[in-house]
Amino acid sequence: MNVGVYGGSGYAGVELVRLLAGHPEVGAFGVASRGYAGRGIGEVYPQLAVDGSYVAPEEIEASELDVAFVAYGHGESAETVRALLESGARLVIDLSADFRLDDAELYGEWYGEHPAPGLLDEAHYGLPEVFGVAEGRLIANPGCYPTAAILALAPVVRRIQGIKSVTINALSGVSGAGAKPSVKTHFVSVNESANAYGAPSHRHTPEIETLLGRVGEIPGVTFVPHLIPITRGELETIVVDLEDVPDAEEVLGWFAEDYDGWAFVEAREEYPHVSHVANTNRCRLSAAVDRRAGKLLLFSAVDNLLKGASGAAVQNMNLALGYEEKLGLEHLA
Amino acid sequence: MNVGVYGGSGYAGVELVRLLAGHPEVGAFGVASRGYAGRGIGEVYPQLAVDGSYVAPEEIEASELDVAFVAYGHGESAETVRALLESGARLVIDLSADFRLDDAELYGEWYGEHPAPGLLDEAHYGLPEVFGVAEGRLIANPGCYPTAAILALAPVVRRIQGIKSVTINALSGVSGAGAKPSVKTHFVSVNESANAYGAPSHRHTPEIETLLGRVGEIPGVTFVPHLIPITRGELETIVVDLEDVPDAEEVLGWFAEDYDGWAFVEAREEYPHVSHVANTNRCRLSAAVDRRAGKLLLFSAVDNLLKGASGAAVQNMNLALGYEEKLGLEHLA
Amino acid sequence: MNVGVYGGSGYAGVELVRLLAGHPEVGAFGVASRGYAGRGIGEVYPQLAVDGSYVAPEEIEASELDVAFVAYGHGESAETVRALLESGARLVIDLSADFRLDDAELYGEWYGEHPAPGLLDEAHYGLPEVFGVAEGRLIANPGCYPTAAILALAPVVRRIQGIKSVTINALSGVSGAGAKPSVKTHFVSVNESANAYGAPSHRHTPEIETLLGRVGEIPGVTFVPHLIPITRGELETIVVDLEDVPDAEEVLGWFAEDYDGWAFVEAREEYPHVSHVANTNRCRLSAAVDRRAGKLLLFSAVDNLLKGASGAAVQNMNLALGYEEKLGLEHLA
Amino acid sequence: MNVGVYGGSGYAGVELVRLLAGHPEVGAFGVASRGYAGRGIGEVYPQLAVDGSYVAPEEIEASELDVAFVAYGHGESAETVRALLESGARLVIDLSADFRLDDAELYGEWYGEHPAPGLLDEAHYGLPEVFGVAEGRLIANPGCYPTAAILALAPVVRRIQGIKSVTINALSGVSGAGAKPSVKTHFVSVNESANAYGAPSHRHTPEIETLLGRVGEIPGVTFVPHLIPITRGELETIVVDLEDVPDAEEVLGWFAEDYDGWAFVEAREEYPHVSHVANTNRCRLSAAVDRRAGKLLLFSAVDNLLKGASGAAVQNMNLALGYEEKLGLEHLA
Repeated sequence: MNVGVYGGSGYAGVELVRLLAGHPEVGAFGVASRGYAGRGIGEVYPQLAVDGSYVAPEEIEASELDVAFVAYGHGESAETVRALLESGARLVIDLSADFRLDDAELYGEWYGEHPAPGLLDEAHYGLPEVFGVAEGRLIANPGCYPTAAILALAPVVRRIQGIKSVTINALSGVSGAGAKPSVKTHFVSVNESANAYGAPSHRHTPEIETLLGRVGEIPGVTFVPHLIPITRGELETIVVDLEDVPDAEEVLGWFAEDYDGWAFVEAREEYPHVSHVANTNRCRLSAAVDRRAGKLLLFSAVDNLLKGASGAAVQNMNLALGYEEKLGLEHLA
Repeated sequence: MNVGVYGGSGYAGVELVRLLAGHPEVGAFGVASRGYAGRGIGEVYPQLAVDGSYVAPEEIEASELDVAFVAYGHGESAETVRALLESGARLVIDLSADFRLDDAELYGEWYGEHPAPGLLDEAHYGLPEVFGVAEGRLIANPGCYPTAAILALAPVVRRIQGIKSVTINALSGVSGAGAKPSVKTHFVSVNESANAYGAPSHRHTPEIETLLGRVGEIPGVTFVPHLIPITRGELETIVVDLEDVPDAEEVLGWFAEDYDGWAFVEAREEYPHVSHVANTNRCRLSAAVDRRAGKLLLFSAVDNLLKGASGAAVQNMNLALGYEEKLGLEHLA
Repeated sequence: MNVGVYGGSGYAGVELVRLLAGHPEVGAFGVASRGYAGRGIGEVYPQLAVDGSYVAPEEIEASELDVAFVAYGHGESAETVRALLESGARLVIDLSADFRLDDAELYGEWYGEHPAPGLLDEAHYGLPEVFGVAEGRLIANPGCYPTAAILALAPVVRRIQGIKSVTINALSGVSGAGAKPSVKTHFVSVNESANAYGAPSHRHTPEIETLLGRVGEIPGVTFVPHLIPITRGELETIVVDLEDVPDAEEVLGWFAEDYDGWAFVEAREEYPHVSHVANTNRCRLSAAVDRRAGKLLLFSAVDNLLKGASGAAVQNMNLALGYEEKLGLEHLA
Repeated sequence: MNVGVYGGSGYAGVELVRLLAGHPEVGAFGVASRGYAGRGIGEVYPQLAVDGSYVAPEEIEASELDVAFVAYGHGESAETVRALLESGARLVIDLSADFRLDDAELYGEWYGEHPAPGLLDEAHYGLPEVFGVAEGRLIANPGCYPTAAILALAPVVRRIQGIKSVTINALSGVSGAGAKPSVKTHFVSVNESANAYGAPSHRHTPEIETLLGRVGEIPGVTFVPHLIPITRGELETIVVDLEDVPDAEEVLGWFAEDYDGWAFVEAREEYPHVSHVANTNRCRLSAAVDRRAGKLLLFSAVDNLLKGASGAAVQNMNLALGYEEKLGLEHLA
């Protein structure tokens, strides 16, 4: 395969480059970075044993690409995606938020005017364990928080009506805040600390609601992300207020049933730790019941850079092109 | 003052010793530790510049104590507390859970049979900002999680009726798990990870419910603590389901009103970070409203070893004996 | 290949299991652990997506093994190694220190009486980039600190005579201290701290001296390891006192020359960071010269669990059995 | 006392503000910050419970200051120091490197042309345990690395002639790299990593050599600092090559003798951990001997923001103005 990566110098881009470099069906691939064009990839990121240099985006011949990954920020991505589709790239996987919501108006409320609303209908939301395999040319790779949330909630929402309330408390590693240095990501700010941020209006909220709305009925979701001093990984503790709370075993059974045959999603009785999924493409789930307060608790952990971004992108590529789901990701299973 | 510390080698005990060593009204004080009796305090804990050695509990002359701090585990503490009160110690401050619940039956459900139920009525719950200053001889020093939770929730519970549900998501540093080495506290287990534990039946749940029940009406609380890779500090994100959600500013106003004149509790618009309270005796509070989902969010941060344990114990001592609240704690304000 | 792992529940053993599970030439393999026999591997270590359970050592049929890895502590390992060789195992790779020194007397000074001195001559020190590929049936897998030290120093010692002094300052992650919980490995002890330990008589000192002594002349080495709050990785800063200090570029050239064709050792002008090698089987080297003080500085970083232990063990297996060096380790290159 | 702080928004400045706010002899004090003038100190740094706002430098009336602290970068500081002395400030304590070297030419080699060479002779190097109490109006507060190094080496250099070589390996927390966000201080760069930097020509090298040269004979020093993932604290492991290596006990005796009567410097047999000195104004020392290699090892730990910067500055103020050394620093002893 001939593959191009646009935005290959952010954390998700770097992780993608690492995965593609080891993928058996990927040949030479171009990695575009406006900031680092001309510099060796392994020089900019010495932890990558990857040959080759960053190029300017226009140096990649888009019409010859089998797969293009776009890892720009939201709003920026859509234009590149459109150009790639027009140039004839066979498959475009967009890691930004630009094609995750199918409603330009809702997008507008949270992100500003959509740069390419005409393409929204073409995009497939790339969480295959819930929404199946993409058939078109454009895949919207899910957000990291929505990945963990939807994988935990879909089996419940699919089966239970009249959910009264859903609260998601999420813990995220600092790579989720991006590679750009700031006071917020300074080691001294983060280390020995933890804080809520972005609540109650983090942009992943409508993504969670919209996508779960395709599975079943879901009330407005309260989503509170927190920054904690780890590099990678996310843990969500989800509290669901229900009329009739099922047993935890029953919920674990739903997980087993719904994710049977999928390589990367697994439920266990033991609550997931971030360390159980870090550096893997896995999502680990669990469930518990608070009988005293009448609540169902769900737990979901992913590595934000892998199952929450680049690992999922490669998984999506594999599935869309007819390869085995785990190809090039075996060591991350 | 003549002061004794029982259980001076756990993390709370060590912190207490550090504070007492710098307290202007505390003279020489005895520190008992069954495990370390005979060894220098500063030898066992080199970060403490404290002279003197640990002694066996029976080497402290209880009848001459102005204040005794008991920092044993729950169940163990009560017997020592009873003996101290009988010996004539003027004031006993118990850092265990043994005298926090006033109902021996409820205690029994969560901790096992109470060793000294006759003393339950004598104990004052030592969260002075909510429950005032102790007048008797026995103070039950609050749990760390309940301290943060009650300080955030009391002003709301006091004013609002018909709260439908309360969910507390708590993040805790590893010192909260105690000094005893185990797989769970091994650096490699904790570092680069995070996990929920103890939910949905952590023992601090009935403490939170019982004490808030003295302030107003409160439904069953869902309490989910998490371990995160920091040494000290706790952050609670509390989601309250209400019929009519007030504005965040109004709630901040309640905090200001209720904690006016108290040195260590302060509300701000900015969400608290653990680093804002670590190594201090402060509690920092904030509030936000999720209008879409109709929820009130409260945020509360404390240092689990200070305002959540030993700092509060010294504050309680100061207040009970008529000293200024901040005496010996000025640098922790 | 039919493979057995003895001592599969320490950190090195777990890492080995993870690598073997993904190795294309390893079939089903047995993993022995005295403490965990009967328990699922993935239950004890939830971060491992490995099927199967730990077994008792005697449940593995040693005579049918193509390769046996022994990951017991020093002193304990030798007996198992002897029994395995006698049972007919084709290749035994010992991760302990028992067969690294070829002199039973020297071993005795540092570790106590050697349990199987007759086998010392049969062992090949498994640092192939310096000592070539093993031809016999017993490989002594190098210690983590010696791996980093010898890879950095061998090219210098090989070319320079009259080295006056060598000082190695090493920084190690906590996984190097083993999986057993202790005060020293408690998160609260390690976090936000750092300390020298074991100096000046850490047991890796004679290993470094003996093995470098086979390459050239080397004075007594001063070795000072430090514990720092990271999970994995080691960084050594080596100061060499020489009569005529070469240029750094010249030394980088020696590295390039000596390690040409080897997949896992690479020198760069940039000083190595632990993050450049963590989770890989690489060793990264660099060199600098302090002209003012007349010293050569060498820098060497490895992941203590991979190139410093289990990754090297798999690399040794590959080479000894005629496979490509990187087989099953590609994603760690 | 009427006190002014110039550069109160870097890490050293913030720490200074915290200490001054709790100092019993400091009245209201002005804190200048060009970047934050007009903003509340406790708003910019929520961990500080300090009233008042940052002001522009010119808003502080210099002529009325009893003490001025200057915490600008090197090169920048000297001009402010000169202006303050001319304005009549009673005592100026400069935390930059501008007045630490007494030789403008040497300064020029490492920092560029000195902005106020005429003042170099007036400055007293503020490490009182070695160089006594300042008598003039200008104190050059020592660098953090030199503080740890000189306190460890001075007792040796004072007594031993013919030292052949000195190598200092230093580990530093990230606060030592300053508050300015950069790729190097991004949490993701620092966490789970460690690296040497600045060697072999870090600017603290001539400071160490020059000041130790006033105590005795010292060869060119090799100084290799490393960044490790902790917020605060420094640990130096110093290897001294001597003709006749004394016993460790003898060296510990020299430490005891030389630092007798000084509150903040203490030697112990146990090697110092960063955690033994973090959040204190202490320096902890130890010594060991490597008889095999014929080397003396010294260990020295300080908190880089306290004894290595702002704590020392307050200690210097106390001593210069005739107060007790520990005034306002008791809780840091």
